[in-house]
Amino acid sequence: MTIRFGLAGLRHPHLEYLLSEIDARPDDVQIVALAENDPALREQFGRRFAVPTYPDHREMLARERLDAAGVVSVNGARGQVVADCLVAGVDVVADKPLCTTLADLDLVEAAWRRSGRRLSLLLDKRFCGPTLAVRDRLATGDLGDLVLAWASGPHRLRRETRPSWMFRHESYGGILNDLCIHDVDLLLWFTGARSGTVQGLAGNRAHPDLPEFQDHGQVLLRTDAGLLATIEAHWFSPEAAPYHGDYRMVLTGTEGTAELRWAHGELHIATHRHPPEIVPLPAPGSVAADFFDAVLTGRQATMRTSEILTATRVALLAQTTANSGAWQAWDATSA
Amino acid sequence: MTIRFGLAGLRHPHLEYLLSEIDARPDDVQIVALAENDPALREQFGRRFAVPTYPDHREMLARERLDAAGVVSVNGARGQVVADCLVAGVDVVADKPLCTTLADLDLVEAAWRRSGRRLSLLLDKRFCGPTLAVRDRLATGDLGDLVLAWASGPHRLRRETRPSWMFRHESYGGILNDLCIHDVDLLLWFTGARSGTVQGLAGNRAHPDLPEFQDHGQVLLRTDAGLLATIEAHWFSPEAAPYHGDYRMVLTGTEGTAELRWAHGELHIATHRHPPEIVPLPAPGSVAADFFDAVLTGRQATMRTSEILTATRVALLAQTTANSGAWQAWDATSA
Repeated sequence: MTIRFGLAGLRHPHLEYLLSEIDARPDDVQIVALAENDPALREQFGRRFAVPTYPDHREMLARERLDAAGVVSVNGARGQVVADCLVAGVDVVADKPLCTTLADLDLVEAAWRRSGRRLSLLLDKRFCGPTLAVRDRLATGDLGDLVLAWASGPHRLRRETRPSWMFRHESYGGILNDLCIHDVDLLLWFTGARSGTVQGLAGNRAHPDLPEFQDHGQVLLRTDAGLLATIEAHWFSPEAAPYHGDYRMVLTGTEGTAELRWAHGELHIATHRHPPEIVPLPAPGSVAADFFDAVLTGRQATMRTSEILTATRVALLAQTTANSGAWQAWDATSA
Repeated sequence: MTIRFGLAGLRHPHLEYLLSEIDARPDDVQIVALAENDPALREQFGRRFAVPTYPDHREMLARERLDAAGVVSVNGARGQVVADCLVAGVDVVADKPLCTTLADLDLVEAAWRRSGRRLSLLLDKRFCGPTLAVRDRLATGDLGDLVLAWASGPHRLRRETRPSWMFRHESYGGILNDLCIHDVDLLLWFTGARSGTVQGLAGNRAHPDLPEFQDHGQVLLRTDAGLLATIEAHWFSPEAAPYHGDYRMVLTGTEGTAELRWAHGELHIATHRHPPEIVPLPAPGSVAADFFDAVLTGRQATMRTSEILTATRVALLAQTTANSGAWQAWDATSA
């Protein structure tokens, strides 16, 4: 089988996560059509892939017999596009965030349940070496139960390279939903937590001419088992550094401590029984590979849709009530 | 002048911060008396210093002409002892925390204002190399305005070495007040913040037989200028590590990022203009040296009493309302 793959939206360089995987396995996946409402982007990618192009994803879904679609539209439009694809009977891998409102999340969840199709999300930190290695160590109990966590997602702004939709709240959706979603997902995955409370804080310290832009924020996450986590993100990553962002996570467990240093490809662990070590890492994977493998084999993807929906709900609860000062209760989405 | 120095309480190894400084400058400071209500400790240190000993600090204050006193009593008793010393006309350097209730803090502040004596606190992270170096960089504007901060204070429990008073709330006072006070103080010092809000979270995950003991917690600190900070502390520092605790602080400013790694004696900085560097450190100082220098010269100590009182108030607000879910407003103590 070769997956007949359509692209619904081409608005973010994260698209390359899909394209590089497709390039690497031409017998498995073929791009057969694309939809994009920006004419310049549509023409550019239409030339690149030599496939039919559509200004509207619904037209593409009606005319092409797609097996699966990649959705990399503007954040604010994404939820509706994802839901439309699912309802049309197409498996979906979407860029993050999945959507920007709780109403759109409900729409996506209903479409997913009704359609029975696959839905994955480009949360690629899931498949990085340090992530896979620490998940193994958590499974063996080396760290005990997680008590405290801190994660930081610094991003370089390089403002001149950013499209204007990223600076408007309706089309972008906010920093907590867009950037903190990665670490929210990881902490829920690491702990298996099913309920808790969350609070969001976000603001604009250095961009007064972009009043709707949040240049920094924190998701304060608590699980009912007792984990206390702070997940921060910001657009102040040092422009002179060799990395886009020095992504970190520090996990404190009852039996040991781990630090994930993604930008340096390192996992550091120290426990009550073993002195500090730098842990050997397994080969990384990717969401795209996980998704295409699942479609080809008919199996479930490692990245479970219920987990994606829960992480998105937690991030959206933090985002949509940011700075209210109130803790919001959250519950996991059932599988 | 030689400072006639009395010890009021000998309950924590932090006492050695004072004794090592006194050992190093015998012409400047002389221990002339000690007070301790634990008979074994009183005898042990009485033999060591060959000075008059008292079961009650008030008796020592009445009988000895002290210039200054070091207060290292049980946390819960400390505020009253500090206030008694100040009212007796004696300069005071106390172990942290300064006290364990807001009522005791008011008592100490009133005694300080009425007496006009010096009051310092053993917050020695103030004088470590990474701290001094980052404060210099903040002063030059290299990091811009501080936007986000995270600090971690891991402590090894080594439970068999701990006196029982540390496991009772009334005598210990709680983890946020005892351990997070250091980083609360540093962030207020770095920013010069005068007001904001704070919230505390604390719990017991692994010590069910010590129901009053908090083995982990977070102080969530906000300044009115917009800094969002999470200050965590815990008693799960890996027993097999070569350090007592891998104390860290990560500061994100509008112009750059700094990481203080106290356990490794390192300061890392990267900015929009300069790639990552490990910053050369100045020679460290100490609270004890700062205090004795001030007493000898008649000048004000670098560690200002108003700053100590503010940091203590913020930590106590977080501690005494921990897990209430509500943000508490705080204001700086005037000088």
